[in-house]
Amino acid sequence: MIKVVVDGFGGDNAPVEVVKGVVSAINENSDLHIVITGKEDALNDELAKYTYNKEQVTVLHAESVITNDDVPTTAIRTKKDSSLVVAFDYAKANDDCVGLVSAGSTGAVLTGAFMKFGRLKGIHRPALCPILPTKTGGVVGLCDSGANMDCKPEYLEQFALMGSAYLKTIGVENPRVGLLNVGTEDHKGDTRTKESFELIKNLGDKINFVGNMEARDLLSGDYDLIVTDGFAGNVLLKSTEGAIKNLLSILKTEIKASFWSKIGALFMKKAFGNIKSKMDYNRHGGAVLLGCKKLLVKGHGSSKDTSIYACINQVYKMSKGNLVENIAKELETLGLDDNE
Amino acid sequence: MIKVVVDGFGGDNAPVEVVKGVVSAINENSDLHIVITGKEDALNDELAKYTYNKEQVTVLHAESVITNDDVPTTAIRTKKDSSLVVAFDYAKANDDCVGLVSAGSTGAVLTGAFMKFGRLKGIHRPALCPILPTKTGGVVGLCDSGANMDCKPEYLEQFALMGSAYLKTIGVENPRVGLLNVGTEDHKGDTRTKESFELIKNLGDKINFVGNMEARDLLSGDYDLIVTDGFAGNVLLKSTEGAIKNLLSILKTEIKASFWSKIGALFMKKAFGNIKSKMDYNRHGGAVLLGCKKLLVKGHGSSKDTSIYACINQVYKMSKGNLVENIAKELETLGLDDNE
Repeated sequence: MIKVVVDGFGGDNAPVEVVKGVVSAINENSDLHIVITGKEDALNDELAKYTYNKEQVTVLHAESVITNDDVPTTAIRTKKDSSLVVAFDYAKANDDCVGLVSAGSTGAVLTGAFMKFGRLKGIHRPALCPILPTKTGGVVGLCDSGANMDCKPEYLEQFALMGSAYLKTIGVENPRVGLLNVGTEDHKGDTRTKESFELIKNLGDKINFVGNMEARDLLSGDYDLIVTDGFAGNVLLKSTEGAIKNLLSILKTEIKASFWSKIGALFMKKAFGNIKSKMDYNRHGGAVLLGCKKLLVKGHGSSKDTSIYACINQVYKMSKGNLVENIAKELETLGLDDNE
Repeated sequence: MIKVVVDGFGGDNAPVEVVKGVVSAINENSDLHIVITGKEDALNDELAKYTYNKEQVTVLHAESVITNDDVPTTAIRTKKDSSLVVAFDYAKANDDCVGLVSAGSTGAVLTGAFMKFGRLKGIHRPALCPILPTKTGGVVGLCDSGANMDCKPEYLEQFALMGSAYLKTIGVENPRVGLLNVGTEDHKGDTRTKESFELIKNLGDKINFVGNMEARDLLSGDYDLIVTDGFAGNVLLKSTEGAIKNLLSILKTEIKASFWSKIGALFMKKAFGNIKSKMDYNRHGGAVLLGCKKLLVKGHGSSKDTSIYACINQVYKMSKGNLVENIAKELETLGLDDNE
């Protein structure tokens, strides 16, 4: 039995969509047990709407909720009765609970992971790795997408190792790892990236490093993992989101501007639907936090049931693939034995 | 009379499109004189195709061409008979020549500018500032978009001043300046960005600083200038380009995939054309290099005549707006008197 704790009140659509996602995950995996935290009555009311094996779900009462307005460190320390802290405390106290899913405040979720789960031995910095859909129908991981500012080259070296191990557990064979840079030539970039290039290159056959890559090729399908510092990674992720969103908004305006294009859009409804679904990265789950002692997936704040379902499945797959153990093993081979 | 030198053999479509663009610019501005460099015969053959005032154009022979395969510093030093070096040398030797336009190798153009033009007194680093079209039909500048790696906060402070002065000369009143960051709150970001925030904030009413901005809002129309280091700026620019390109490619595939969507696309031809034109940043000219003693616009390698025309117009407008003098004046008020 794989046990996962879910923050039942994290995210804009909690608890309705969270409960719906939990039920989907349960109904698909008979060896999955979900502990869901939050207001007991509300959770039970939602659960009552569905048919599922009741032995696979436990409701754990939590009176309050951490919001985006809370200061993360303060909230994790003081809001001990919140759905997120109750979830973290449960996972920490129970060895058989493999990880946590939350669509709540990113800051609070990351802070909670650092404070409650802690880093694996040898890990400099845990890193966020979301998964994006590519042009060719595959996926690409981005590590770090914003958990760490002021990264050192040694952090990026570990991001490459951890991200590679993660992609293997979700079914990508021999993931092609690219280092985000301003050009593809070996000597390009700022000092951090040049030094990171050397460190990652020296990992040899531990990973499949294909060299420097440019931001324009994120969605090309030529890479399975992009390694970068949290600042540039955040810029890459958000500008890609923003460009797609703004282009679709311009498209909408243009369609509305003429009768004929409105007619045309009707004929293209299916094509537009396919594109929306192709570019919807929520269906791939959330961003995984790599390098902690337990698994953690942070869902988008606007997660619907399908996204929560996918986040739970990520934890399930990572647990079956022994991700935490694999990362620990990779780190050992680097000969690191402290955290700085 | 405003005199501008144009690298007649720079870019993928030289000299045909370059000459066409030169003629358009000449025919629009009777007080513009263009000196165009490159193989004399070829340039004269192209010019012979058009009607224009011959007194406004001078052809300056240059036997060779610098390509993307040349090492920039070596090429600028040794290929003295190339269209680019002849252009730089002409601009340097002639006080009445206000600036240079080239669609050639970015590395060579930047190296040439540093070596031949030199920095304005007090400028830490000249910076590239391309202009992008926004969702709302306006434009946004991005400074630095990749000329400088390992930027210090003081560089970004100057990028804010120079970029702001540039946008004013192309008609943007009181440009709203945003600092690229991972969030909009004041305390966000890595050390460089936090320190840059303080320096830029302390510029007071010298510029219209509106605070931190996120990569997803580049095209929103909420900002006129984005200030950032060259690494993150390059990531922002290229990921935006890449996301738009990949989304349009997915759209194309989806349209081709079904009979009905092909029909729909016919009805939407005008709408698609409008979008393509809206997002085509070449029609706004090229990236301006700010902070040198003469004006410089670097056109995209794939520039067509409209882009070359726009690049020349940029130099023309910047010259009329006394950009170099204005930047020098702004710098003086900072009390800087050396280059480091």
